[in-house]
Amino acid sequence: MPAPNILFAAKSERWIIYEPHLRHALAAAGISDTGLTTDTDTPAEIDYIVYAPNSPVQDFTPYTGLKAVLNLWAGVEEVTGNTTLKAPLARMVDTGLTEGMVEWCVGHTLRHHLGMDTHLQGQDGTWRNDSVPPLARNRPVTVLGLGALGQAVAKALHQLGFPVSGWSRSAKTIENVQTHHGDNGLTAALSEAQIVILLLPDTPATENIVNADTLAALPKGAILINPGRGPLIDDAALLSALDSGHIAHATLDVFRTEPLPATDPYWAHPNVTVTPHIASETRPDTASQIIVENIRRGEAGEPFLHLVNRDLGY
Amino acid sequence: MPAPNILFAAKSERWIIYEPHLRHALAAAGISDTGLTTDTDTPAEIDYIVYAPNSPVQDFTPYTGLKAVLNLWAGVEEVTGNTTLKAPLARMVDTGLTEGMVEWCVGHTLRHHLGMDTHLQGQDGTWRNDSVPPLARNRPVTVLGLGALGQAVAKALHQLGFPVSGWSRSAKTIENVQTHHGDNGLTAALSEAQIVILLLPDTPATENIVNADTLAALPKGAILINPGRGPLIDDAALLSALDSGHIAHATLDVFRTEPLPATDPYWAHPNVTVTPHIASETRPDTASQIIVENIRRGEAGEPFLHLVNRDLGY
Repeated sequence: MPAPNILFAAKSERWIIYEPHLRHALAAAGISDTGLTTDTDTPAEIDYIVYAPNSPVQDFTPYTGLKAVLNLWAGVEEVTGNTTLKAPLARMVDTGLTEGMVEWCVGHTLRHHLGMDTHLQGQDGTWRNDSVPPLARNRPVTVLGLGALGQAVAKALHQLGFPVSGWSRSAKTIENVQTHHGDNGLTAALSEAQIVILLLPDTPATENIVNADTLAALPKGAILINPGRGPLIDDAALLSALDSGHIAHATLDVFRTEPLPATDPYWAHPNVTVTPHIASETRPDTASQIIVENIRRGEAGEPFLHLVNRDLGY
Repeated sequence: MPAPNILFAAKSERWIIYEPHLRHALAAAGISDTGLTTDTDTPAEIDYIVYAPNSPVQDFTPYTGLKAVLNLWAGVEEVTGNTTLKAPLARMVDTGLTEGMVEWCVGHTLRHHLGMDTHLQGQDGTWRNDSVPPLARNRPVTVLGLGALGQAVAKALHQLGFPVSGWSRSAKTIENVQTHHGDNGLTAALSEAQIVILLLPDTPATENIVNADTLAALPKGAILINPGRGPLIDDAALLSALDSGHIAHATLDVFRTEPLPATDPYWAHPNVTVTPHIASETRPDTASQIIVENIRRGEAGEPFLHLVNRDLGY
């Protein structure tokens, strides 16, 4: 087949990382890599754009022959609103990203479940063996968002014995997960959760879904873990619920502004753990294979994987 | 059937916790609880002793009608050497204890795998997102000891993607675990482990199994987790390997002396986490069911479960 023209449109430091992985994955798929470029001078000749939203390409109008835009990340909220983009848009659904997310979520769930912080902060010679945590089977966890990431996290928590509930906007049936959906199901999903994990996409419908009302639906002493998206949380409402003790702890990996400013009250709050958007990252090796698989499909006339519904925003 | 005489021989604070669970489990098994006692005045009439090694009963000679001693804990090293005990000795194999141990081991493995401490200790406004951990699938873990606890931990780590190796004194075949055995297999089991978990019994053959030689067999930067038994480790050798940086971190839950004295160098070492023997505890509800099942078997003439081989010591 002729070599497709593939524009890598992301920051230059990404190109250094991704170029060898993409060339390797193209070769493995039997696709010539001579059209792989970062050169934006001939937009009408580009077949595919491997895309990060913070790249120089913001106006897709000159890309008149575009077959697809292949997003480098799982989150597409900064692309879906771009009205100059008419070509199909595919999200990244990277096995490496899913694995990393499961590891981070299970790790922080167990950290809170086991009360690990007490011991990590208590290396002072005092033998604090007076409280044994319940077993995981007596610690209900709720996952908000049941896409690829939420389902994988729910499965891993179930395998460790946690009773797992899940919530999504539309009804879903998932083995070993007590599922709820829609506005009415949200209160039920939250009401028995001792630990809540946010893995929803960032859309107008999910913004501030964690607010004064939904926080009040959680039992006193609940723990919030957010590896999803910053705008899911009404920050003032969460800080208030932390101050009152209704929420015992929040571990937050994503924020409305990143890096989180050093003056943000989350940094100073004794019951908040800030982590620097590390819950999961796209892995260049597995991600390059996903991107090349979609290029192969495009060239072979097969349907693309992981297309975004632009109306729903995910 | 006539009511068996069951002596609960452990500290009085245990009796307060266990008595209702034991009576409940006896009733559920259809066994009269009228013979359940803490009274040691008529030893010749006792059929079963529910036993903790630190109980007042150290000389079993007067217990001439004893059918079995049912240990409250998984560890039996303080009973196996008691030459006055002639009756069968059963270890505690408690599903609750196993679950708790899996949760603790997986939690601390993920804590080290994810580099969690850097972030928990770095709530100072600095956005430290420069290092992403490898995926679990690229982080080999070795479990020393493949009894009920070791096998359960190995399985849970495998389910999360970790490549798991295991070592035991005698050869074992375990699904999804690369097993090694015997003195010659130990170096192989250690040589590729980035994280090592100790779940061996405390016997003369396992004392100081973690020593200068075996620590040297681990790759530089390895992490040691000990929820097993304190005497497994040559403490001076471990402190030396921590000082040199060959071992990056040790998380220790058990010690030769407990509570660990406040002056012990482990408390002060920056690369050691001391936890106060909390990795797992026997749970009175599930443990009482296990004890009563063995009493039921004894009364019915069926073989006891979980008998200790006194020669091997486990």
